[in-house]
Amino acid sequence: MDVSQLMNIMWTMVAAFLVFFMQAGFAMVEVGFTRAKNASNIIMKNLMDFVLGSLFFFLIGFALMFGGDNPFIGTSGFFDPLSLDVAGFDALAPAVFLFFHTVFCATASTIVSGAMAERTSFKAYLIYSALISLIIYPVTGHWIWGGGFLSSLGFHDFAGSTAVHSVGGWCALIGASIVGPRMGKYKDGKPQAIPGHNIPLGALGVFILWFCWFGFNCGSTTAVVPELGHIAITTNLAACAATFVTLAFTWILYGKPDVSMSLNGSLAGLVGITAGCDVVGPYGAIAIGAICGILVVLVIEFLDKVLKIDDPVGACGVHLACGVVGTLLTGVFITKDGLEVVNAGLLEAGKAALSKLEFLGVQFIGVACVGVYVCIMAFIIFKGLALTIGLRATAEEEEIGMDIAEHGTSAYSDFDVKPN
Amino acid sequence: MDVSQLMNIMWTMVAAFLVFFMQAGFAMVEVGFTRAKNASNIIMKNLMDFVLGSLFFFLIGFALMFGGDNPFIGTSGFFDPLSLDVAGFDALAPAVFLFFHTVFCATASTIVSGAMAERTSFKAYLIYSALISLIIYPVTGHWIWGGGFLSSLGFHDFAGSTAVHSVGGWCALIGASIVGPRMGKYKDGKPQAIPGHNIPLGALGVFILWFCWFGFNCGSTTAVVPELGHIAITTNLAACAATFVTLAFTWILYGKPDVSMSLNGSLAGLVGITAGCDVVGPYGAIAIGAICGILVVLVIEFLDKVLKIDDPVGACGVHLACGVVGTLLTGVFITKDGLEVVNAGLLEAGKAALSKLEFLGVQFIGVACVGVYVCIMAFIIFKGLALTIGLRATAEEEEIGMDIAEHGTSAYSDFDVKPN
Amino acid sequence: MDVSQLMNIMWTMVAAFLVFFMQAGFAMVEVGFTRAKNASNIIMKNLMDFVLGSLFFFLIGFALMFGGDNPFIGTSGFFDPLSLDVAGFDALAPAVFLFFHTVFCATASTIVSGAMAERTSFKAYLIYSALISLIIYPVTGHWIWGGGFLSSLGFHDFAGSTAVHSVGGWCALIGASIVGPRMGKYKDGKPQAIPGHNIPLGALGVFILWFCWFGFNCGSTTAVVPELGHIAITTNLAACAATFVTLAFTWILYGKPDVSMSLNGSLAGLVGITAGCDVVGPYGAIAIGAICGILVVLVIEFLDKVLKIDDPVGACGVHLACGVVGTLLTGVFITKDGLEVVNAGLLEAGKAALSKLEFLGVQFIGVACVGVYVCIMAFIIFKGLALTIGLRATAEEEEIGMDIAEHGTSAYSDFDVKPN
Repeated sequence: MDVSQLMNIMWTMVAAFLVFFMQAGFAMVEVGFTRAKNASNIIMKNLMDFVLGSLFFFLIGFALMFGGDNPFIGTSGFFDPLSLDVAGFDALAPAVFLFFHTVFCATASTIVSGAMAERTSFKAYLIYSALISLIIYPVTGHWIWGGGFLSSLGFHDFAGSTAVHSVGGWCALIGASIVGPRMGKYKDGKPQAIPGHNIPLGALGVFILWFCWFGFNCGSTTAVVPELGHIAITTNLAACAATFVTLAFTWILYGKPDVSMSLNGSLAGLVGITAGCDVVGPYGAIAIGAICGILVVLVIEFLDKVLKIDDPVGACGVHLACGVVGTLLTGVFITKDGLEVVNAGLLEAGKAALSKLEFLGVQFIGVACVGVYVCIMAFIIFKGLALTIGLRATAEEEEIGMDIAEHGTSAYSDFDVKPN
Repeated sequence: MDVSQLMNIMWTMVAAFLVFFMQAGFAMVEVGFTRAKNASNIIMKNLMDFVLGSLFFFLIGFALMFGGDNPFIGTSGFFDPLSLDVAGFDALAPAVFLFFHTVFCATASTIVSGAMAERTSFKAYLIYSALISLIIYPVTGHWIWGGGFLSSLGFHDFAGSTAVHSVGGWCALIGASIVGPRMGKYKDGKPQAIPGHNIPLGALGVFILWFCWFGFNCGSTTAVVPELGHIAITTNLAACAATFVTLAFTWILYGKPDVSMSLNGSLAGLVGITAGCDVVGPYGAIAIGAICGILVVLVIEFLDKVLKIDDPVGACGVHLACGVVGTLLTGVFITKDGLEVVNAGLLEAGKAALSKLEFLGVQFIGVACVGVYVCIMAFIIFKGLALTIGLRATAEEEEIGMDIAEHGTSAYSDFDVKPN
Repeated sequence: MDVSQLMNIMWTMVAAFLVFFMQAGFAMVEVGFTRAKNASNIIMKNLMDFVLGSLFFFLIGFALMFGGDNPFIGTSGFFDPLSLDVAGFDALAPAVFLFFHTVFCATASTIVSGAMAERTSFKAYLIYSALISLIIYPVTGHWIWGGGFLSSLGFHDFAGSTAVHSVGGWCALIGASIVGPRMGKYKDGKPQAIPGHNIPLGALGVFILWFCWFGFNCGSTTAVVPELGHIAITTNLAACAATFVTLAFTWILYGKPDVSMSLNGSLAGLVGITAGCDVVGPYGAIAIGAICGILVVLVIEFLDKVLKIDDPVGACGVHLACGVVGTLLTGVFITKDGLEVVNAGLLEAGKAALSKLEFLGVQFIGVACVGVYVCIMAFIIFKGLALTIGLRATAEEEEIGMDIAEHGTSAYSDFDVKPN
């Protein structure tokens, strides 16, 4: 194995470690932005989605995602993913490639736990979390990254605005709708604020996610290339622009700069730039970030006040809205050089090059196909659970808190927790 | 210096950074799983064991571990470790090798602070923590990794299930026995639950440890090799299997999935796979993880209820039991290729190759020798301290909490902390 | 691009990720060591200084720092930093170099937020934080690292004891003086202890900073070289020695080992070794650490009791005092080999080599020039703000806490926070 291959292995390993560590970031964000009485439960959900995701992705998911050339689904490698011979295996080593995609997979289902926090039964959570890793993420992942039909069209989703974030986001939206709002969230049809119980921990989560996002985006090269710096710069500028714009927008809107919205603004910018971080320029990144910084506020408010879908941590606003829009904006802000990168891949595969408008069309097709598939599957899963073992905790469980109800424990035994 | 040597330096540096960061993970786990009134004290203990460990390992420990060919102890390089010329120095650079082993050393003594938390005098802690880094860890480390007699036998402890975790674990067991249970832990001989005060912080600690364990295990190659992916996969699968099994087992056992046990389950899997992460396959890793996931619960319960040894954070169950059993299970689940790796080392040193059964025997010998030495030394240290300056805080100190008693401060000045 | 260039890119990227993550460390330290009622506000300040710093450094700061040969200030590359052709660009890639210096820049302004915490208006904070990134840090940065007059003299500040820490520290000192002490800090001229509200979180911040400091110091090579191990060893030994000495010193001084001082002791050692981590030996590092470990206590006490400057987190003691003294001590403890490294740079530029005493003189000149410039600029900025839009929150805002006053939120909604 030559030196540059080994170097790519090292880079991909480091990036994968960081992507794993996003689990800590998501856990802290979701803990911090929800109530103290449910803190242990949300921790357990975050822990278990990674656990189940890793196990099932190893056994089945990876085969569905990378097992062969079928445009819609992988068909080989079940229970023995390292036996596969896929393109990524040559450039790296099979287990490195598998490890990298394992940690990516687990990110998608984590997104859902936040949107459905504080009232979803733990047992139901385990099941749908496993199913997302089994039959949702790997299928759309195959379309985009596994040689499926979207990659053949020239769909560009570099590190997963669509493949990871919008997939998690659509599931979050459907799940939060079906499980219904938390008790006390709507009084006479009016949304009540239910503030998070530990903002410093939530903020720590955002900093961890931002840190790890550099692994997520820059690592998606799975190779050491001079473009790494460019990707880091666009990623960072988008996050900064989004945070700044969210801060300013909420200052105007509410009269005070909003803390949890601004923190969500950072994540919004990161989600938005993830699809195109390699093909847009610094100013394009700032534009994408700024748009996502406004969008996240509007979508969170729209869900909360108009659609009356209760998403405790704003996951739909962050991951769904900015995942979708970021993928589309890649088509708007792609540079000439960036479009050449996309077209080079198409020409190599014997396809025709795309104009900028055609490329935007392909981005739209990709977003739509993924959205339709994920929504249908998520609807079946969540409705199925609701009609069988039940998706929702009982009113008493919700009242006393999921920690005591589901786990017989309190997260903060030495403190008095207000009965919110 | 050629490119591949520089690449190995880079990899070892990154891994060492991660292993350092385990200190944060241990600190958060130990803080979160103990009471608020002792939070600053446990922080200080975690901080100081790294500080003393680093200083004494530089001055003396490294020489004991790597200073020469004596089968039992190193004899040269005191106070000037970089003057040594050991095998690891050639492949890397002396200071890189020293740095990597410094951060490893400090991990062992950190384990002890959790098991003896909430009632051990700070002064005594400083002394025994220094002694572990001085005369326990480097000696057994020499046997295993420094060219000592266990390495000559073919003992395989890739990243330290025995060298790090069981060493810390044996000290923890002896220390917790000698210092005795916390006040109020046993009423009429029955163990009382003393819940941790900050589960989210404890969980963050587990996520940090898991993240850093990739550096711990994959970094133990101290070289960039294609096998890195394999090590990450086995490490991750073992942790996942263990967490899942612990969750399921406690669900059956207690009627509810237990939060702190499940988090300890993750650590149990990580400790268990550390010895053999390079020589067992993915399914072997799952098996080792699953066994450790049950074992950790049984051992914690056995210590708590039968032996009546009070280990506030379950350190003996995690690090001792799974460190020992993980090392032995390496002999059970080693693959044919894995055994060839072990035998290649032996043949190179002019020794005979081992059969699988002989290898299991060697693993047993290694575990036993380390256990006997560490227990004797730990017994002398802790008994010695108990009989001289005293090992235990006074009853009043324990009652008001170690934070006020030892440091004149509260960890949470703006909150009311319940007098537990 | 050849392999070793790619390797340097990888290394610099990883280091930059770690330096970014220092933001989380600073945020946790500042949150933990201040009061619960201001926790969200300090989070927002930490978030926004990185956001504004990144944006303005991209647009203007980088050009001021690296845009050309003028000895005092960069003059080209505004709004298009990647168009520049600077020395660092050849060794790496332009965007990698830019990214690395962006995350460094943001570190300096973060230091200020801690010293001025709990009573500074958020709006004023945004403005001065932007100005530090715009017209203070890049200018002195140009002198030291951008080819300006200090670098021509042979001034050696490897990773920024002066360029980052003393720059932030001088701003912190001037800012804390001008904004004045917190309400209730001085009663009848006597300083009152205002303890931090979350020591575990503060300690986590210190562990994160220590972890990331390895990226900060080792990464400042921006190249993979055998000396990385040496830098890590000196960095770590200095931090350990400082922590140990601070612990011992406070034990003697106050009768009990002080928790927050010891944690600041770790940071003091890290700041102190940052200038000379590459050119002093292990024992020199221990000496620098030990001196900083005493110094930080003395300076914090002196500011608190004598100068009556209220610095809630001890930022001046850590970053200013140890930044300045660490830079000077580099001249005292530099090894013969180290001095040769410095002189090699001078000889290459056609300058005369320095004796050890001359080198110490140059260090002094560098520290003094930077101090004078930063103090003047900081005075103008803070006085200007105080006289125009106002620097300080109102008494009522300070009383109810900045979280409610500035953001309409509490950081801990489910807990009772004492009205301290």
